[in-house]
Amino acid sequence: MKQISSVQNPFIKSLLQLQDKAKNRKQSGTFLIEGQREIMLAQKGGYRLITVLFSPEIISLSAVNQITTSDTEIIEISKEVYQKLAYRDTTEGILAIAESKSLLLSDLKLRKNPLILVAEAPEKPGNIGALLRTADAANLDAVIIANPKSDLYNPNIIRSSVGCLFTRPIATGSTEDVIAYLKDQGIAIYCATLQDSTHYHTQDYTGATALVVGTEATGLTKAWRTASKQNIIIPMEGEIDSMNVSVAAAILIFEAKRQRLP
Amino acid sequence: MKQISSVQNPFIKSLLQLQDKAKNRKQSGTFLIEGQREIMLAQKGGYRLITVLFSPEIISLSAVNQITTSDTEIIEISKEVYQKLAYRDTTEGILAIAESKSLLLSDLKLRKNPLILVAEAPEKPGNIGALLRTADAANLDAVIIANPKSDLYNPNIIRSSVGCLFTRPIATGSTEDVIAYLKDQGIAIYCATLQDSTHYHTQDYTGATALVVGTEATGLTKAWRTASKQNIIIPMEGEIDSMNVSVAAAILIFEAKRQRLP
Repeated sequence: MKQISSVQNPFIKSLLQLQDKAKNRKQSGTFLIEGQREIMLAQKGGYRLITVLFSPEIISLSAVNQITTSDTEIIEISKEVYQKLAYRDTTEGILAIAESKSLLLSDLKLRKNPLILVAEAPEKPGNIGALLRTADAANLDAVIIANPKSDLYNPNIIRSSVGCLFTRPIATGSTEDVIAYLKDQGIAIYCATLQDSTHYHTQDYTGATALVVGTEATGLTKAWRTASKQNIIIPMEGEIDSMNVSVAAAILIFEAKRQRLP
Repeated sequence: MKQISSVQNPFIKSLLQLQDKAKNRKQSGTFLIEGQREIMLAQKGGYRLITVLFSPEIISLSAVNQITTSDTEIIEISKEVYQKLAYRDTTEGILAIAESKSLLLSDLKLRKNPLILVAEAPEKPGNIGALLRTADAANLDAVIIANPKSDLYNPNIIRSSVGCLFTRPIATGSTEDVIAYLKDQGIAIYCATLQDSTHYHTQDYTGATALVVGTEATGLTKAWRTASKQNIIIPMEGEIDSMNVSVAAAILIFEAKRQRLP
């Protein structure tokens, strides 16, 4: 088994770049995953683990073997190297290099009467992570990021999603392409936006449904409002006129889930 | 009008301490608020503004006068001093020293059939801020923090609540005291916890209701489960078995709101 104990090792340096730079992730078609649970969820979600790096001072080889398959290269690293690479100050002791997915709309495989979350141009990794956690909890058919502002394989997104980035089907695309896709699939579009809106709980989400949320700062672009079957709003009764996007999305998603109960 | 242009000024140094240390806030019975909207919401929420500091290079005196009352001392500070004090890298140009409230359970004035959120020992300021934003949006009768881990006048909580810390009645107390208070007021306790739980949407929240959430890590203490009218759970259909506490609370609160519609 290959062993690396120097933080100056060129391969280790290349991994730091992979962590920091979207460009390097895009060019290599790979990204880094930290933590045992996250790596397990990625594998379960069909991501190919190219290499797993572990620090035997923190995690046992047998625990590592439980996560990896025969085609995964395993590298032993020193605790020092691990701590250089680790984003979190925890004691996980394991990292993986995984192959990115293309995240194409055309690759989505939807179930009957799908329930989909669309988020347009979400910016904060914490918000994206929270959306993905809710998508996992609700077992959504897909999460679609329209006009993505950032690379989804950003370590902050993986971390804040606690690995839920890997558990539900995800796609990205321009707003134009996403709208065309949804229309083509016969999925009703409900936009969370103020204009010409009605209270969210008055609508029926038991058919094929896409719930669409924008950013807190700028809301949804006009194309969404044009494509919308009905604009919906969560009634705001307080002093503040906006909600955190992940909170708003969760309220909409779980109302749809409630309606869909057998 | 008093003017301060040196970051070495002892009063300015004392404000930095007020920002950083819960102990200083507790001893002085005061805290710092940053930003125009936040200060306005505090004033509207009945907080006494003792002193307002503004940088005329960023905000006009007339804008300041709109927020303050005749008993508020106004101090002009240089941009340099403002930037030293400002938590955020924004262009607000205004800070206030406000008088803390005691946050006693006995001071809460509840409306008929109140809907209350109780959070036990929440830790992350971002989560507390998000809970307070939802409480504002839902116009809750009160937010009660049981066994508080941190001082609510922490600048990170004020900031992440975007001023919603000031918009709804808030109280803190030991879990024991909060339970006694709720029982005394005849408020039904619904605990978001796994044990002996039923799906949240099967319950009726149209009467006097307290929705109780714990931390993601440790959940609720046993006293809550004993006091609970019914434990409730949001069905989790994914790979991950926990939700962000602010997301879970929002789903519960807005289900109660939906049921309470006229």
